[in-house]
Amino acid sequence: MSDLNELIKQVNWEKSEIVPVIVQNVDGEVLTLAYMNEEALRKTLETGYAHYYSRSQKRIRMKGEVSGNVQKVKEIKIDCDSDALLLIVEQVGVACHTGNRSCFYRKLGEPEREVGGIDYSLTVLRELEEVI
Amino acid sequence: MSDLNELIKQVNWEKSEIVPVIVQNVDGEVLTLAYMNEEALRKTLETGYAHYYSRSQKRIRMKGEVSGNVQKVKEIKIDCDSDALLLIVEQVGVACHTGNRSCFYRKLGEPEREVGGIDYSLTVLRELEEVI
Repeated sequence: MSDLNELIKQVNWEKSEIVPVIVQNVDGEVLTLAYMNEEALRKTLETGYAHYYSRSQKRIRMKGEVSGNVQKVKEIKIDCDSDALLLIVEQVGVACHTGNRSCFYRKLGEPEREVGGIDYSLTVLRELEEVI
Repeated sequence: MSDLNELIKQVNWEKSEIVPVIVQNVDGEVLTLAYMNEEALRKTLETGYAHYYSRSQKRIRMKGEVSGNVQKVKEIKIDCDSDALLLIVEQVGVACHTGNRSCFYRKLGEPEREVGGIDYSLTVLRELEEVI
């Protein structure tokens, strides 16, 4: 089962061409929910760095490609239905384009929170570029 | 912001009527990926126990309603795009219908694994009923 194609085939792509991916830091913090198609999973397995499928841009991006906030993949788990993945990663920098470490930085009911106010630094603009 | 309707309105339901929900145990273990619509979130907030929208059954179920494997909700977080939720729960029993604690019990590449072989106990049948 070590062959790359065999690994990729474990996901039930017939059910959905794009599957949700829970991204959890090695310290246990849930960082974000992302999506992968077959090619994104292949690139992730080949490189060891998380690649996601952007549903809005309809293309694959390596996480942190521009900003440097990459995710080194330590483990990939698949759920009982074979239609969702859990990536355990080492997050470099922050995962969220807002500058927060995790995209889940707000409790339901809490207002929006900017990290250190509005930040026009190059890093943030690059993060924004990735999101847009 | 303590009003229930205000909490529910924080989710961007216009983008999608059903949002993915990452379910994490208080000890940090990611248990499952589920889905909620507005009503499921309302019932979760009202009762303090996780309710999900079953996409296959097209109806709302309280997690563990039949099996007793309920999830007491400790915290609800919303992501930066307001289109995904993270529930921190106290899991009673197991989260997965296979009998495993987490639905993410397999590494990508590992074969299927039954907990203690095929189990025809009432608990498992009740879990199966929830899934079907």
